Amino acid sequence: MELRTAFALIEATLEEGRRRKARPLSVVVLDPGGHQIASAREDGAGFARLALAQGKAWGSLGIGFGSRTLSERVTKAPEFFAAAASLLDGRLLPAPGGVLLLRDGTLIGALGVSGDTGDTDEACALFAAGRLGLEHER
Amino acid sequence: MELRTAFALIEATLEEGRRRKARPLSVVVLDPGGHQIASAREDGAGFARLALAQGKAWGSLGIGFGSRTLSERVTKAPEFFAAAASLLDGRLLPAPGGVLLLRDGTLIGALGVSGDTGDTDEACALFAAGRLGLEHER
Amino acid sequence: MELRTAFALIEATLEEGRRRKARPLSVVVLDPGGHQIASAREDGAGFARLALAQGKAWGSLGIGFGSRTLSERVTKAPEFFAAAASLLDGRLLPAPGGVLLLRDGTLIGALGVSGDTGDTDEACALFAAGRLGLEHER
Amino acid sequence: MELRTAFALIEATLEEGRRRKARPLSVVVLDPGGHQIASAREDGAGFARLALAQGKAWGSLGIGFGSRTLSERVTKAPEFFAAAASLLDGRLLPAPGGVLLLRDGTLIGALGVSGDTGDTDEACALFAAGRLGLEHER
Repeated sequence: MELRTAFALIEATLEEGRRRKARPLSVVVLDPGGHQIASAREDGAGFARLALAQGKAWGSLGIGFGSRTLSERVTKAPEFFAAAASLLDGRLLPAPGGVLLLRDGTLIGALGVSGDTGDTDEACALFAAGRLGLEHER
Repeated sequence: MELRTAFALIEATLEEGRRRKARPLSVVVLDPGGHQIASAREDGAGFARLALAQGKAWGSLGIGFGSRTLSERVTKAPEFFAAAASLLDGRLLPAPGGVLLLRDGTLIGALGVSGDTGDTDEACALFAAGRLGLEHER
Repeated sequence: MELRTAFALIEATLEEGRRRKARPLSVVVLDPGGHQIASAREDGAGFARLALAQGKAWGSLGIGFGSRTLSERVTKAPEFFAAAASLLDGRLLPAPGGVLLLRDGTLIGALGVSGDTGDTDEACALFAAGRLGLEHER
Repeated sequence: MELRTAFALIEATLEEGRRRKARPLSVVVLDPGGHQIASAREDGAGFARLALAQGKAWGSLGIGFGSRTLSERVTKAPEFFAAAASLLDGRLLPAPGGVLLLRDGTLIGALGVSGDTGDTDEACALFAAGRLGLEHER
């Protein structure tokens, strides 16, 4: 994904957060290998929030499911996810707000959001994916 | 185990995965010391999947049981496994799909598979062990 | 530092990089606690480049000198810096391109740049600080 | 890069190693994010050799230069590379044998080889890139 696209995703995520009067959001855009392309943490957000946003996006790319799907599976197999999180140095956060992004069926990265409820975090991410015309898996 | 045998195990695992229409599989073959001989990650698999496959095989060799047996024991002694995983830097993943491989009763390594359900991952591993005429402990 | 300021710093850094025909740049803006406010990695930059940029800025904030000063001191006291880097989990990168940022004498964060030579990385950071009217220590 | 391509690269690397009567080789193919697609360690190779091969390829992708270029730069800036290696948890190995792979100018991954001298390791990698018709940066 180009940096230009990543910036547009962040801008749209924050715009939707303001519209929903969400708490301060932290947003990260990762390439398909789980490496940051761009990030932004709004004024007033706790300093670890970007790490949480990254955990949602990184875990989604690493396992191959959006983080809502991961959050549903974790309740069925808690021991597996605890072990997987330990194996992956904890970089896996199974909570809504991490969304895989695809263009014409090809994975181009992931968007991770943290700051409000998981549902609101995810809604802002989905708004941004839609604004950019990207397919998503949540 | 010879590299030639490891490649044949990977090939058979992936062949069985395709026959079962499994999700993209990641496969690793380890020597008795827990070190990779060969690995393969199918197109479309999340980038952390080889680490999960390795966690099944490494944990099996390290503790001395196949990873299905480990997954059954973890429910009886969750504290033990949490502590052991921490002690072993999380490299232990107690979920089906890690299989010890023996030849004439001698341990020659382990095969780890991740990508679909644990049951399917393990079925593909067992098919490969059988194809190569190796004894196994799951 | 406000997110708005961090974005403006990144934009100015990248603009100066393009003017100098620098290699693709990675840029990070940290708060006084060493935590990311925003980051950007230009298309074509290696995936570890943001970590290097962060190492310049984090080390500057952590020790209290800009990373050029750190790079000069490291040649006088290599054992000290080797031990400090180890103590700090390696998060310290003593090479030009990490700049402390102040407003009316108060530390508000740091800017870290990686991608071209240390001199060019730093020149782009200094241009951005100047554009925003911020004092700096390099 | 497809798994099929990764296997063909490994096969060609090992074939060239046998032709040159090289010591047992370890070969890894990484995607652009530095994650394994496939690996192979020849019979008789030390168990850490795959980690060395990975360090050449991972460092090349992370910094954006082939590992021969990294090995030349390390002699000019040893403190920088020592600090960068520490920052990147040591995953960076600046020695010939890590080659960036491109198709029509687009980075598709990297090939890392370890086992013989750096020059021989690299020669085997370059043979494989040529056999597959891929562009490379060493």
